[in-house]
Amino acid sequence: MSVLEERGLLSGKQGGTTGYKLVPVEGGGLFLCIYLIKREAYIMIIVMSPTSTQDDLEKVQQKILQRGLQYHMSTGESRTIVGVIGDKKAIANLQMNAFSGVEKTVRITEKYKLVSREFKPEDTIVDVGGVKVGGGHLAIMAGPCAVESMDQLMEAAQCVKAAGAQFLRGGAFKPRTSPYDFQGLEEEGLQMLRQAGDAVGLKVVTEIVNMNDIGLLCKYADVLQIGARNMQNFQLLKAVGKTQMPVLLKRGLSATINEWLNAAEYIISEGNENIIFCERGIRTYETFTRNTLDLSAVAAVKELSHLPVIVDPSHGTGRWQMVLPMSRAAIAAGADGLMIEVHPHPEVALSDGDQSLRPENFRVLMDEVHRIAQAMGRK
Amino acid sequence: MSVLEERGLLSGKQGGTTGYKLVPVEGGGLFLCIYLIKREAYIMIIVMSPTSTQDDLEKVQQKILQRGLQYHMSTGESRTIVGVIGDKKAIANLQMNAFSGVEKTVRITEKYKLVSREFKPEDTIVDVGGVKVGGGHLAIMAGPCAVESMDQLMEAAQCVKAAGAQFLRGGAFKPRTSPYDFQGLEEEGLQMLRQAGDAVGLKVVTEIVNMNDIGLLCKYADVLQIGARNMQNFQLLKAVGKTQMPVLLKRGLSATINEWLNAAEYIISEGNENIIFCERGIRTYETFTRNTLDLSAVAAVKELSHLPVIVDPSHGTGRWQMVLPMSRAAIAAGADGLMIEVHPHPEVALSDGDQSLRPENFRVLMDEVHRIAQAMGRK
Amino acid sequence: MSVLEERGLLSGKQGGTTGYKLVPVEGGGLFLCIYLIKREAYIMIIVMSPTSTQDDLEKVQQKILQRGLQYHMSTGESRTIVGVIGDKKAIANLQMNAFSGVEKTVRITEKYKLVSREFKPEDTIVDVGGVKVGGGHLAIMAGPCAVESMDQLMEAAQCVKAAGAQFLRGGAFKPRTSPYDFQGLEEEGLQMLRQAGDAVGLKVVTEIVNMNDIGLLCKYADVLQIGARNMQNFQLLKAVGKTQMPVLLKRGLSATINEWLNAAEYIISEGNENIIFCERGIRTYETFTRNTLDLSAVAAVKELSHLPVIVDPSHGTGRWQMVLPMSRAAIAAGADGLMIEVHPHPEVALSDGDQSLRPENFRVLMDEVHRIAQAMGRK
Amino acid sequence: MSVLEERGLLSGKQGGTTGYKLVPVEGGGLFLCIYLIKREAYIMIIVMSPTSTQDDLEKVQQKILQRGLQYHMSTGESRTIVGVIGDKKAIANLQMNAFSGVEKTVRITEKYKLVSREFKPEDTIVDVGGVKVGGGHLAIMAGPCAVESMDQLMEAAQCVKAAGAQFLRGGAFKPRTSPYDFQGLEEEGLQMLRQAGDAVGLKVVTEIVNMNDIGLLCKYADVLQIGARNMQNFQLLKAVGKTQMPVLLKRGLSATINEWLNAAEYIISEGNENIIFCERGIRTYETFTRNTLDLSAVAAVKELSHLPVIVDPSHGTGRWQMVLPMSRAAIAAGADGLMIEVHPHPEVALSDGDQSLRPENFRVLMDEVHRIAQAMGRK
Repeated sequence: MSVLEERGLLSGKQGGTTGYKLVPVEGGGLFLCIYLIKREAYIMIIVMSPTSTQDDLEKVQQKILQRGLQYHMSTGESRTIVGVIGDKKAIANLQMNAFSGVEKTVRITEKYKLVSREFKPEDTIVDVGGVKVGGGHLAIMAGPCAVESMDQLMEAAQCVKAAGAQFLRGGAFKPRTSPYDFQGLEEEGLQMLRQAGDAVGLKVVTEIVNMNDIGLLCKYADVLQIGARNMQNFQLLKAVGKTQMPVLLKRGLSATINEWLNAAEYIISEGNENIIFCERGIRTYETFTRNTLDLSAVAAVKELSHLPVIVDPSHGTGRWQMVLPMSRAAIAAGADGLMIEVHPHPEVALSDGDQSLRPENFRVLMDEVHRIAQAMGRK
Repeated sequence: MSVLEERGLLSGKQGGTTGYKLVPVEGGGLFLCIYLIKREAYIMIIVMSPTSTQDDLEKVQQKILQRGLQYHMSTGESRTIVGVIGDKKAIANLQMNAFSGVEKTVRITEKYKLVSREFKPEDTIVDVGGVKVGGGHLAIMAGPCAVESMDQLMEAAQCVKAAGAQFLRGGAFKPRTSPYDFQGLEEEGLQMLRQAGDAVGLKVVTEIVNMNDIGLLCKYADVLQIGARNMQNFQLLKAVGKTQMPVLLKRGLSATINEWLNAAEYIISEGNENIIFCERGIRTYETFTRNTLDLSAVAAVKELSHLPVIVDPSHGTGRWQMVLPMSRAAIAAGADGLMIEVHPHPEVALSDGDQSLRPENFRVLMDEVHRIAQAMGRK
Repeated sequence: MSVLEERGLLSGKQGGTTGYKLVPVEGGGLFLCIYLIKREAYIMIIVMSPTSTQDDLEKVQQKILQRGLQYHMSTGESRTIVGVIGDKKAIANLQMNAFSGVEKTVRITEKYKLVSREFKPEDTIVDVGGVKVGGGHLAIMAGPCAVESMDQLMEAAQCVKAAGAQFLRGGAFKPRTSPYDFQGLEEEGLQMLRQAGDAVGLKVVTEIVNMNDIGLLCKYADVLQIGARNMQNFQLLKAVGKTQMPVLLKRGLSATINEWLNAAEYIISEGNENIIFCERGIRTYETFTRNTLDLSAVAAVKELSHLPVIVDPSHGTGRWQMVLPMSRAAIAAGADGLMIEVHPHPEVALSDGDQSLRPENFRVLMDEVHRIAQAMGRK
Repeated sequence: MSVLEERGLLSGKQGGTTGYKLVPVEGGGLFLCIYLIKREAYIMIIVMSPTSTQDDLEKVQQKILQRGLQYHMSTGESRTIVGVIGDKKAIANLQMNAFSGVEKTVRITEKYKLVSREFKPEDTIVDVGGVKVGGGHLAIMAGPCAVESMDQLMEAAQCVKAAGAQFLRGGAFKPRTSPYDFQGLEEEGLQMLRQAGDAVGLKVVTEIVNMNDIGLLCKYADVLQIGARNMQNFQLLKAVGKTQMPVLLKRGLSATINEWLNAAEYIISEGNENIIFCERGIRTYETFTRNTLDLSAVAAVKELSHLPVIVDPSHGTGRWQMVLPMSRAAIAAGADGLMIEVHPHPEVALSDGDQSLRPENFRVLMDEVHRIAQAMGRK
């Protein structure tokens, strides 16, 4: 993978164009840089040898046209490069290496496609048993970081429901830095979540950490959360992609926006397009906040993809005092919703107490967030 | 400087407490960690030797009390540590090293004080010739990245004034990565700024890059901008601190919030408290945006300091499409204003055209931003 | 998790001490900071209420001593904190919350233990079928990024064997950013690796990406590699921990050294101590190199852990020109070996051609690296 | 500045090529990407309008050839782009905008030139009063972080001289995060440095923080150090560029390699080519070390520039235990020397005691570093 690709410069970010590619050529200082036109991408670059003839070039062009493809010529000081545009399969079968005068061919790496707004211009609305996420709706997911007990959970569920949330969040399987940390109540926790969600009328969002648990999770949850640490656990992505369950895909701690969209492409390419992105802060040098909440990622996802995106300011900042202002900011930036940690008694929380809101603060948050949404003309 | 200090963990971030300090002690595994109580900080830590006697300790305590200071004892397995609290000068004159049984003394590094909200709980409002920044007012600074010509500047000034901005921004001295890049029109540019500002009724904000230019800048500008690259140019900070000019202090590209506040302390400790912070994005691994706009820094500054803070989403994102959503988000996060690049013709801009708004988009921005501010009950 | 914990400040890095903890106390500005003595860690902190009596305190102390535990007192202006030291289980059963005068209790999170040099001072030597890694031995793992064909692999295997490597590396399962990238030859690739390894006499190192493939991998490989993206795939870590296979644990792209050691703790706590760390570069803002190779991590792991650590300068830099100098530097920094991408024909490599060495350059590398090792008095 | 430029992708890193440039064209999805051939860079890009004629194009080409320049054509679906190659001044005077059919022209930003190895292939050796830095020589600069007293300095100077260093380092002006930290002994400190250097026969390296102090510094020092915080203090760079004093240019805390080389270009373009780069660690998320020492930057500078580069592992790691292994690694990576903090009594140092070596450890370091240098066949 070239530096350009890795750094996201090959993403389809400039309108209809989709990428660039550097092609080092032996024995010379020539480096090609590709430009892509409109919605079509060059799928293959053919580098002609310096000793190739005009006849060689014409045969190459002929073959391309025969296959129903187009070409774009770039003529350098001592070399000619042919960019081939068109249907991917047709190009894959071109087999140009054997042609006289062809030094080498280079395939342009494919990038995310099905998740892109180019592919589908209108907003996707994910329907979670009747509750809509995306398309201007405001989806609020709230609850404790980890499920600790039925009492704690019911208290949290009642309070977040009363304040207007539609989803109950809570972890039953907790991926923790240390093997000795509390790892969650597992299936018992899932049962509690389902019970509490049903009791008060909230959809249930919870994290899946093991592809082999997928049956179990589908039994109890309404939305499967893929945590930041698993954003590039491609086996898990494929596994949830094979279901039709709504998936909440958190951004990895050091994932570029491009990698995040590609992670979603793993899910959607398996057939599941019920994907909700969740920005939850990235790792930077700043230590005042637990992570650096990147709200420009909300605007970026809205530009690049048709899928909804929500924001988790609790993990994003790690400080409960910041959850309110960053929730307002997230909605103002265009987020489709929020995921908020609410704990009836944060001071006794088994994990992440510092970043959990008390019920009364959550009510204030809901009120302020709705005012921002109204000012923006949203539902 | 310990890692804790450098990483901002020694800042006064936890309410009344102000810091921690690690004190390695020779010949043993003991490490001290200080805690600080209420508004008073331990200014000195006295580490007693393992062979010190109770008598030694009592003499130390006596001396402390005699000087009108307080102490806090921490008794470890084999050692005793005495934390001394109170007036800084009194502590500086304690001279405990010569006492029997004292192994060593450690002074706790002082942190920013005058800029802190602890020091001054109410919001500071910076008055720029009658235009107020801070305290709920919405200050909008707009204009081109660099002053290029009188025509360009007047066109920009008229449009930003018409849309409701109070400040005209524009660079006459441009710090550029390469010595061969356009470095600004210098004094000629300053004259144009003043002329355009006066013509349409806007205050002028422009960058100072050289402490020797301070007289020149004060002649033409209403607000002196310290750019990101100069945030720790301490000579320049002290120089503007000696004036009473309003100073716009941009956050350094990789500055922690703690370092940023300390940079302001350099200015305020020279006597100038007319300081406006400006968040403009930090450097991270993400390349889709030019920088990562850290809006949680707005909430942090509001918590830690009494000084106003505005946001520059143009440099913060480097993409004009993102300026609108991030402006809304900045105001929703609690920012006291915005600094926006507006260029009548971004496609011909000599620098930063990609991130400049056209006049028509700036009008939309002003409208949306005001609606957010109203929803929050602001002026 | 507090910021201190997350940032690695709670690691056992200062000799015998193992951590710090902040304990906010309601209704006051008091913040406790714990210090830990020698090899014993406070496992629990008891915060006494401001209204607690001396009698309350004595009862608490009595209970602690009855259970065979020790305590450490810290007396603040208005509060007393009791640190409890000793056996973890005994502490877990203390149930102090119900005692009069106890405001709250806080358990200190446990950190990595079995991987630490404190726990085991002497170097661990991982034996891979007779080839030793660690303890001064120089382990060289080389081969192509991905297994592409039997011809390619045999050519690579012969060349790296001839130059003195002991391990053949090659990916059969490739975790790729995009689902449309080449994902590896899978089992066919494993068979080729085994065959090539056996043919020339090299141990085989290859990546495992799916916990359900563990039987398959154990059949063909000598060392299981956990890639950077899976460093916190805790299910996979536990799965390899249940085997006795040597595991090569790459550092995550944005993993702290503390998180990396904790990831190894997941493996070792399941019973497998055959772990080799592999530094492969971290993600920073710098783009000239693909990643920033952090050689100070080698020195850090050597200080903190008894397990061997090798370096992968190919992924670490992404530029073949840098592989030679960074290999020399890695050995000079104290690394136990290297993992190097070697491809007979890098220009046609299906992945990562830019960072692969040609055979002739690999021979030069082996020669220079051995000279550095000799200068350091190593085997 | 485009993202590509800012991220260093426009540097002259690929052999003879020097850059790329994106040119958005209005009203269409076309984006141009430039490739550069051999040692010549396109200095200007001419974008032809979609309605331009073949005649328009020929007139443009004719004009280019008349001026002794070359052109390179790139023909897109609906547009033609002309790249102009050749003498910079001739291009600057082309004035193509007025031509029929020309939509716009774009100048490619110039990058560092005089510091590049392309410009001068052989190593520059900086001569500091007879002591050579660069070209295989091993330059060792050592001494305390800050000058504290004559006694301390003499003791340090004698010990580092005895161990084989050629330079005495020490700060008289200290840029500190907080205005209340120790700011150095200023001129008194300079006098001590000169006196100690002369007494034992060491060259003196010390930091300049204020361009107005340049006369003072030149009077006492042999090498002027530009600290990390001032790497983009362009006024200071130009000021030292106007002298012939050797300059030690530290890398900024978050500076890319490209920005660092451009900073040096500010100095060299004023006429002073006596520049020594100094890698001192970059700011990353890792907190175990104070900074992340980027030794691949040594290899990068060696590839891109003819100027010498040394390494400061004391600031780079912030931990004295790591100074020895990272010094060995720096030399093995190809560094031309080291800058090491040595303090006779680190435990009483006024700043940076944690990272200072004791004299006995420095002697060990010198011995080991020389063995590495010998193994590499260096002087």
